[in-house]
Amino acid sequence: MSAPHDCAVVLQNLSLSELTALLEKIFLRHGTSTDVARVLAQNCAGAERDGAHSHGVFRIPGYVSTLQSGWVNGKAVPVVEDVASGFVRVDAGNGFAQPALAAARDLLVQKARSAGIAVLAIRNSHHFAALWPDVEPFAYEGLVALSVVNSMTCVVPHGADRPLFGTNPIAFAAPRADGDPIVFDLATSAIAHGDVQIAARNGERLPPGMGVDGLGQPTQDPKAILEGGALLPFGGHKGSALSMMVELLAAALTGGNFSFEFDWKNHPGAKTPWTGQLLIVIDPSKAAGQSFAERSQELVRQMHGVGLKRLPGDRRHHQRAKSQDQGIALDEQTLANLRALAGEN
Amino acid sequence: MSAPHDCAVVLQNLSLSELTALLEKIFLRHGTSTDVARVLAQNCAGAERDGAHSHGVFRIPGYVSTLQSGWVNGKAVPVVEDVASGFVRVDAGNGFAQPALAAARDLLVQKARSAGIAVLAIRNSHHFAALWPDVEPFAYEGLVALSVVNSMTCVVPHGADRPLFGTNPIAFAAPRADGDPIVFDLATSAIAHGDVQIAARNGERLPPGMGVDGLGQPTQDPKAILEGGALLPFGGHKGSALSMMVELLAAALTGGNFSFEFDWKNHPGAKTPWTGQLLIVIDPSKAAGQSFAERSQELVRQMHGVGLKRLPGDRRHHQRAKSQDQGIALDEQTLANLRALAGEN
Repeated sequence: MSAPHDCAVVLQNLSLSELTALLEKIFLRHGTSTDVARVLAQNCAGAERDGAHSHGVFRIPGYVSTLQSGWVNGKAVPVVEDVASGFVRVDAGNGFAQPALAAARDLLVQKARSAGIAVLAIRNSHHFAALWPDVEPFAYEGLVALSVVNSMTCVVPHGADRPLFGTNPIAFAAPRADGDPIVFDLATSAIAHGDVQIAARNGERLPPGMGVDGLGQPTQDPKAILEGGALLPFGGHKGSALSMMVELLAAALTGGNFSFEFDWKNHPGAKTPWTGQLLIVIDPSKAAGQSFAERSQELVRQMHGVGLKRLPGDRRHHQRAKSQDQGIALDEQTLANLRALAGEN
Repeated sequence: MSAPHDCAVVLQNLSLSELTALLEKIFLRHGTSTDVARVLAQNCAGAERDGAHSHGVFRIPGYVSTLQSGWVNGKAVPVVEDVASGFVRVDAGNGFAQPALAAARDLLVQKARSAGIAVLAIRNSHHFAALWPDVEPFAYEGLVALSVVNSMTCVVPHGADRPLFGTNPIAFAAPRADGDPIVFDLATSAIAHGDVQIAARNGERLPPGMGVDGLGQPTQDPKAILEGGALLPFGGHKGSALSMMVELLAAALTGGNFSFEFDWKNHPGAKTPWTGQLLIVIDPSKAAGQSFAERSQELVRQMHGVGLKRLPGDRRHHQRAKSQDQGIALDEQTLANLRALAGEN
């Protein structure tokens, strides 16, 4: 099935399971275990399905490159440690963060439901995906989840003159009674790294205030940011403080690397930050009063009442429904590239 | 002891214990219990000592006014509920939030050290102070603490056209090896409400982007914001998402009111938001690897290395040391007003 596009790009529509199977084949062919291939393929295909293009199949060449470089262990088996009634640790073994979360997930949920709150501290891990897929599933189970992950030096702390922090996103998910969960995922940089890469690829300029060039001067050229320049934090000193908090929670509190601590120069092609990730999961049934999901629904109702058209997460949930109906549209060239990486032609 | 000032204001220096005793007398004289008077006086005098003037003695007339209005119960006895191995609730009984935290604090610390993480959900409470004094003491005990509190409708959600959220601050504290803790306290509004009040009092204009007037139009006049206008979130949609998260955590997850749910029109003079507060405390000794305090010290070292002159919290810690040395300077008129409220003249 194909559809004409206004600039003559031919689109092909794949189902989620077709895209997942294709990506799984790519991961397997580039040295991951079957478990890791399945987790990463589901994650990446889900992002593409939800219209989160900067973390969809756009990321596949980066995954392939980093696996080929020997920088990350695609066959790592995460080691889960049960530390306390509310504390789980995982050593991801220099593998990806998502399989580490998958390995610890059941224990984490069990602890959150029993203790009321639980924390998962993942270290020695590589996170190269969006962060919202890590928190959203908890909200579908009635839990509130918060996660932070640090990345790689590319953000200048507010008041400093050289980069130190990563883009260091914060993601949050909460259930609500009459609809999809409330979910957001925000980089503490003024713009996500993937969006700078996409702007550079498309030859677009960025809005002011996003980054600086190699001399530390403000620039709107995405290439100047990527080639020796750096990003700025969002919201001045406040976003910078939150980015610092992410370093402390995702690295210092997990035993992982800070964004400035790893050195991949002996692994040309390495793309994935080797850091840590923290998740906090809370069971809102322990709270006093009316059910949390009814209360969050009331907040949503009032937000619409003051003129808010779209909630955080709405666009993705809308695109998800559309993709489930019509399939996930990929242009022919992108699909051909993916098939080549999967060894299909 | 008095010192001349460049605009001929005469300053008087008080010790922390002198100022605390004076404020305690004011609270007692306006209907609080001795426990509540002690907790609030220590909190407010500590803020003044640390140079956090918008939450120091500047707040005393507001406290007096709200107590006189009958809106808050100055003699409330908090009821602590031990809900699960990581979950403590407190019904503040329509009293202040700080005595509720004080009542639950030992249990919260005990649970955090045992479970690795614990949450304190305070509801039916009034928070009229800075948020950093609630988290900083945990860091001096080697713990990591995060707190959020919602306030009263005065912030327009990004993309909406009328106010709904409160200024909804987020505070964070973490220990470090060779110095005072890393502490920040940031309103998710573009500016704190107290700072707008101080600008209005001083006849100053605000920077652009802080708020709107009663017609929803951008304004730099603090009075236009206070009289029918509203604040904006910091950092556009990202700050707005964080403010929404604060509503969910501080109200929906505690059983407290959202910022838009209370109505004080039958209590002229009421100033304090009747909402909820959430604290999360984590024991970093459960983390893998090198000690957390050594790791956070390394982050601070690197932040200074990229040219950062001042860490979040540094200014307060510097002012604290100065106040301990020289006393807390108050102008004569302010001191006379406080003494009058204490019934001393």
